[in-house]
Amino acid sequence: MIIEIISTGTELLLGQIVNTNAPYLARRLNELGFDVLFQSTVGDNRERMTQVLSVALARADVIITTGGLGPTQGDITKEVTAALLGRKLYLHEPSLDHIKCFFTRRNLNMSDNNLRQAMIAEGALVLKNSFGLAPGTVVETEKNTVIHLPGPPYEMEGMFEQEVAPYLIQRFGDQGVIFSKTLRSFGLGESALEEEIKDLIKAQNNPTIALLVRGGEITVRITAKASDQQSAQKLIDDMEQKIRSRIDKYVFGINDETQELVTGRLLAAKKLTVALAESCTGGLVTNRLTDIPGSSEYLTGSVVCYSNAAKISAVGVPASTLEEFGAVSSQAAQAMASGIRNLFASDIGIGITGIAGPGGATDDKPVGLVFIALADKKAMQCHQYNFIGDRMAIKQRTANTALSLIRQHINAL
Amino acid sequence: MIIEIISTGTELLLGQIVNTNAPYLARRLNELGFDVLFQSTVGDNRERMTQVLSVALARADVIITTGGLGPTQGDITKEVTAALLGRKLYLHEPSLDHIKCFFTRRNLNMSDNNLRQAMIAEGALVLKNSFGLAPGTVVETEKNTVIHLPGPPYEMEGMFEQEVAPYLIQRFGDQGVIFSKTLRSFGLGESALEEEIKDLIKAQNNPTIALLVRGGEITVRITAKASDQQSAQKLIDDMEQKIRSRIDKYVFGINDETQELVTGRLLAAKKLTVALAESCTGGLVTNRLTDIPGSSEYLTGSVVCYSNAAKISAVGVPASTLEEFGAVSSQAAQAMASGIRNLFASDIGIGITGIAGPGGATDDKPVGLVFIALADKKAMQCHQYNFIGDRMAIKQRTANTALSLIRQHINAL
Repeated sequence: MIIEIISTGTELLLGQIVNTNAPYLARRLNELGFDVLFQSTVGDNRERMTQVLSVALARADVIITTGGLGPTQGDITKEVTAALLGRKLYLHEPSLDHIKCFFTRRNLNMSDNNLRQAMIAEGALVLKNSFGLAPGTVVETEKNTVIHLPGPPYEMEGMFEQEVAPYLIQRFGDQGVIFSKTLRSFGLGESALEEEIKDLIKAQNNPTIALLVRGGEITVRITAKASDQQSAQKLIDDMEQKIRSRIDKYVFGINDETQELVTGRLLAAKKLTVALAESCTGGLVTNRLTDIPGSSEYLTGSVVCYSNAAKISAVGVPASTLEEFGAVSSQAAQAMASGIRNLFASDIGIGITGIAGPGGATDDKPVGLVFIALADKKAMQCHQYNFIGDRMAIKQRTANTALSLIRQHINAL
Repeated sequence: MIIEIISTGTELLLGQIVNTNAPYLARRLNELGFDVLFQSTVGDNRERMTQVLSVALARADVIITTGGLGPTQGDITKEVTAALLGRKLYLHEPSLDHIKCFFTRRNLNMSDNNLRQAMIAEGALVLKNSFGLAPGTVVETEKNTVIHLPGPPYEMEGMFEQEVAPYLIQRFGDQGVIFSKTLRSFGLGESALEEEIKDLIKAQNNPTIALLVRGGEITVRITAKASDQQSAQKLIDDMEQKIRSRIDKYVFGINDETQELVTGRLLAAKKLTVALAESCTGGLVTNRLTDIPGSSEYLTGSVVCYSNAAKISAVGVPASTLEEFGAVSSQAAQAMASGIRNLFASDIGIGITGIAGPGGATDDKPVGLVFIALADKKAMQCHQYNFIGDRMAIKQRTANTALSLIRQHINAL
């Protein structure tokens, strides 16, 4: 059974808003075991909407549209479908009552335009909208099922859960489940990681394996289809074990677990505290760590020290170090790490200095040159990197690397 | 001339990521006067990608695809197109050199997979990728033009601006323009702002007016269509003046101008420096300020001081203040503002303390209670807020408000 999602609305074609309805529907339908194989977007134009609907009717069994159920002349989704399927529209009294009631309760006058919202195709099933005015509809033909939902995400999502999901399961039966698990890795490049699990990717069937790069992180998504959640989970567990046996040391978390979450959890578990002296990252690492509730337990404090004066006065970097080696140097990073560790009496001190660009580079110190130092009571380590990208990319990559270093350090203790 | 955008990637069909490439392309193409009439999404599947491409070849003149140019087996966009158009792929040496060079510069070994990225359809125009590995291509046939761009937004956007936009204008001529300008405001609620310009919204035609709320900011987008940029600009200028006459004091910037950019620009223009002591925002304000190139000119330094110990030792807040009034208090915020100002010898000192949640609330200090103090050499001001939302929303709202306070303070000097 193939599903196509059609998003309607000229604002989507103009790129004025980002389409969040299609990914919502796609994710939920997949979780329920239904295959979404096509997504289309078309404007509020009769001819082209007819064209897009015709293509969908030919290649999909179920078509779910969003948008175009409003009161204006541009809202034509129901009309176009009815015309294409040779159905007439009629005024659906219960829906009209629902709309009238909305206006009466607010002491507003209903405009005649709103009558349009209660027009329904003959033979259609009406989907109640508890979240707004426009009802949804299901039109069934011999070959296809066409479902219309409103465009506002709040209404669309609510109606999908209350009306559409139960309808689909009742109509097409329980589809089993599609279940996904994502392994999140950092530290190994995309090609190198793929090389490690190439044979598994090549032989993939159920579960499937997909790689995705996001901000320097590489995620491996394992997706299994089965009759029930337990069987799907088993398929995923087996594949996960195979993949982990190759790349486990780069995997830091699963699903929604960010680096800041996992690093924070590790610090909390080991009852360790951290303090950071950030130069080129400008507080990004600290900001990410503090996105996690409870981070005050392990983050004692940080200093963002852009200027040499700040490095000297607030973190205690010796002026002579900056003079001799420069602010972007291994020596400066180390002095920052030990200085910040002393200032906040933390177990771990991190010093980050580099050139995020676009300005500030010299012949021997290019944009992207970054030093990260980590100090604890026993030892000091310092690493040099040459990151590429714009200012934001370099900040993010540096932050990811710093979080990764903290984890590796704790795991090696 | 009709353009269709095809987004490829199974992660899109599964709803695992939101598609931001299609709206970016749609918006930019519209600004350049090109009509995007269809958008489609398809997974990394040969058969269905062929199907979607075939439909597009029949109804569109220009097809722009994103995604599927990577090194993995799932990256098949170029192959599918070449097969459909009867072209062979060959190894494009300059692209291979570009890729090899990337690995050599980083002392990494190139994997054989990366060869795939340098495979190009016969007769195709190669689009240089200055932002990553995979080159883009333009394949022209008698009827169609098919343009392939990579999926990562950073690469895709850069290549569109550097390569695709100039190509389209040269190939298809200047198309007249649709031109947009966005006024960004902070400090007035959505309904209140809409009330102020209700009559203009109601009478809109060309230009059109649209309101959009993003993270507490409200933007007003004015869009005009005309034969040339000057005429469009004139239409926009007139409408902008009308709108500004009603809400000008809330407008802080236009288009891509963020609060951090505008605030930073103001600091630089007045040759003022700022230092921040951040508690509940965890470095977010500093991180946003340092997203702007050149921010080292006006940001002397910041301290993230979550713990009482950090507030005392690193910022110089008197222990007695914390004991008497608590860390989340007007008195603490003021002591943080003046303490950080002294520490970094800056013109302006900001102290931010509050409860971002979900933990940490008490009966008289609920989640969302925030104090922001601003100190300069002459005076001290402190404001109390009760923000709603989750931890991230409270951090963002606090940061937006702090940036706004800095601007208001400077503007009032």
